[in-house]
Amino acid sequence: MKPVYLEDGELKLIDQTKLPTEFIVHSYTDYRKIAKAIVDMIVRGAPAIGVTAGYGVYFGALEYQNEPKDVFYDKMKEVCELLASTRPTAVNLFWAIKRMEDVMAANVDKEPAQLVAILKDEAQAICAEDIQMCRDMGKHGAELIHQNDTILTHCNAGALATADYGTALGVIRAAHEAGKNISVYADETRPFLQGARLTAYELHADGIPVTLITDNMAGWMMKLGKIDGVIVGADRIAANGDVANKIGTYSVSVLAKAHGIPMYVAAPTSTIDFAMKSGDEIVIEQRDCREISHICGIQVAPDGVAMENPAFDVTPHQNVTAIITEKGVVYPPYDINIPKLKEFPS
Amino acid sequence: MKPVYLEDGELKLIDQTKLPTEFIVHSYTDYRKIAKAIVDMIVRGAPAIGVTAGYGVYFGALEYQNEPKDVFYDKMKEVCELLASTRPTAVNLFWAIKRMEDVMAANVDKEPAQLVAILKDEAQAICAEDIQMCRDMGKHGAELIHQNDTILTHCNAGALATADYGTALGVIRAAHEAGKNISVYADETRPFLQGARLTAYELHADGIPVTLITDNMAGWMMKLGKIDGVIVGADRIAANGDVANKIGTYSVSVLAKAHGIPMYVAAPTSTIDFAMKSGDEIVIEQRDCREISHICGIQVAPDGVAMENPAFDVTPHQNVTAIITEKGVVYPPYDINIPKLKEFPS
Repeated sequence: MKPVYLEDGELKLIDQTKLPTEFIVHSYTDYRKIAKAIVDMIVRGAPAIGVTAGYGVYFGALEYQNEPKDVFYDKMKEVCELLASTRPTAVNLFWAIKRMEDVMAANVDKEPAQLVAILKDEAQAICAEDIQMCRDMGKHGAELIHQNDTILTHCNAGALATADYGTALGVIRAAHEAGKNISVYADETRPFLQGARLTAYELHADGIPVTLITDNMAGWMMKLGKIDGVIVGADRIAANGDVANKIGTYSVSVLAKAHGIPMYVAAPTSTIDFAMKSGDEIVIEQRDCREISHICGIQVAPDGVAMENPAFDVTPHQNVTAIITEKGVVYPPYDINIPKLKEFPS
Repeated sequence: MKPVYLEDGELKLIDQTKLPTEFIVHSYTDYRKIAKAIVDMIVRGAPAIGVTAGYGVYFGALEYQNEPKDVFYDKMKEVCELLASTRPTAVNLFWAIKRMEDVMAANVDKEPAQLVAILKDEAQAICAEDIQMCRDMGKHGAELIHQNDTILTHCNAGALATADYGTALGVIRAAHEAGKNISVYADETRPFLQGARLTAYELHADGIPVTLITDNMAGWMMKLGKIDGVIVGADRIAANGDVANKIGTYSVSVLAKAHGIPMYVAAPTSTIDFAMKSGDEIVIEQRDCREISHICGIQVAPDGVAMENPAFDVTPHQNVTAIITEKGVVYPPYDINIPKLKEFPS
């Protein structure tokens, strides 16, 4: 299930705000509309946002390819700034834009029209590499999942959050494909309900047994002995192993620790912010409180009541059993083992 | 705000499924419809259910008062059984019905028509005593809340869950009325959203500062140092201090403990099941999974996916800092101090 791909010269995005009851694919060629699709969470999930932003830069170049070179570079600066302004927490977004910018910088001698082809190739490479990274993460992570395990996951770190296959759900897919008889509990993940709408949807579609629960049931399911492990994705990982991920991940990590259940994070190394010492520095996106007061457009909270809507929280590295990357599984001490990943061949 | 009261010979119930956007009061005189209102959660909250069931028994007696005495008692057995079958977890329901049955047993010499008046008085007494108990709980519990405290609450243990004033929210009201500058964080409490729809509604109406969050934000708010204490209600308390309350309470208790935050339970002694040794024996009501798959009638989960919907969980006594009752505050060891409440004068 590919949520973002290039086809017939258009960027295609599965509208993830309409799942699971409607399957709609939108087409884009305007980088402004691509940026808005990220803001509106038509596409979401840190890796998928990165892939989308890469294509966004390409469509910007396509639009301005007939401008004089200096105008072209000015315009491309605007394109990259707009795309980077869409969401603040997922590091893959900035990573992908930086990669496109680096390609432009390395080809500054070329004419804009030539650059367009190079940028298209780079965006396609980001997309293809993302799928390969998910497959590699799956291979490494599947080793941590045992026969008959029941795994809790939060939010959607699945095919729909990547170019395909998924990070946390990629690990689950790989274990399932390896013949392990596993099942999944999916937190519904308010306010955006990614667990109910997306994780339950894509696992069910793939025939992997999944049970949907509300977020506040996770601890009770652990208490009842129904959960053997937790796997989640990540939007940014600091150099010390602190993990920013969907709001609620922190609570799940505390609950897992209290019940002696391993807590795994699956994310490509592009999610690691090697320059960031700890999670304290991570900017947490605050989203519109209407996501809480209204569900599917229906008002569920009284007018005039204060609300908070942080989109993410930070799980301290002490609560993370291991981090599953495309290069292998990283264990504590993270402040020593994470920097080593930089030297590890891709 | 009284969610259940007798007026002009009819039982009035605020329709809590319609709040906060519609304020509708239904009228009842048929005990069957009163039982259905409990099942459908028109009225909910352990003490309010008890009060409603008391009135239900009275309306049953009113309906059958012209029957011969033996038929009357047979019919009243049916009335009590129907009302007792509505919800399995809240002990106040059985406590209130038992109290009405005891009154009938004590007046077995009277004619049915005379009994109706006695049962009406008893139902009114249950209602009035519930309000007084909430006031007394408030007085005792307010001592535990400090100036400038921010209190997290889960579900609705408010005026809307009792005959008036509330248990957990009664304590908050009493602290507020005592001039303490307190504020409240309310978990929205999926799947039924009692926190968003009811707790936020009644606190906001009373001018008590309240901030609404999704359930999965509670741990993160604790981590950020925003929560000084937790107060929740209870549907049943075992003799060892284990507490059955709305699903999600257990997770909150684990999170509070991990952050060194006190966890208080406010409940009248009618909520205590002195005959039950531990929470392991408590029957947990499993509700229709449509409450999870559909929100306000809109489908949010894919067809065919498995779900769980336990309405309650059990918080072990080790996670409970103190239990606030109308007779005073009870501290551990609960297995010694809870039985003492039986001897304590009402």
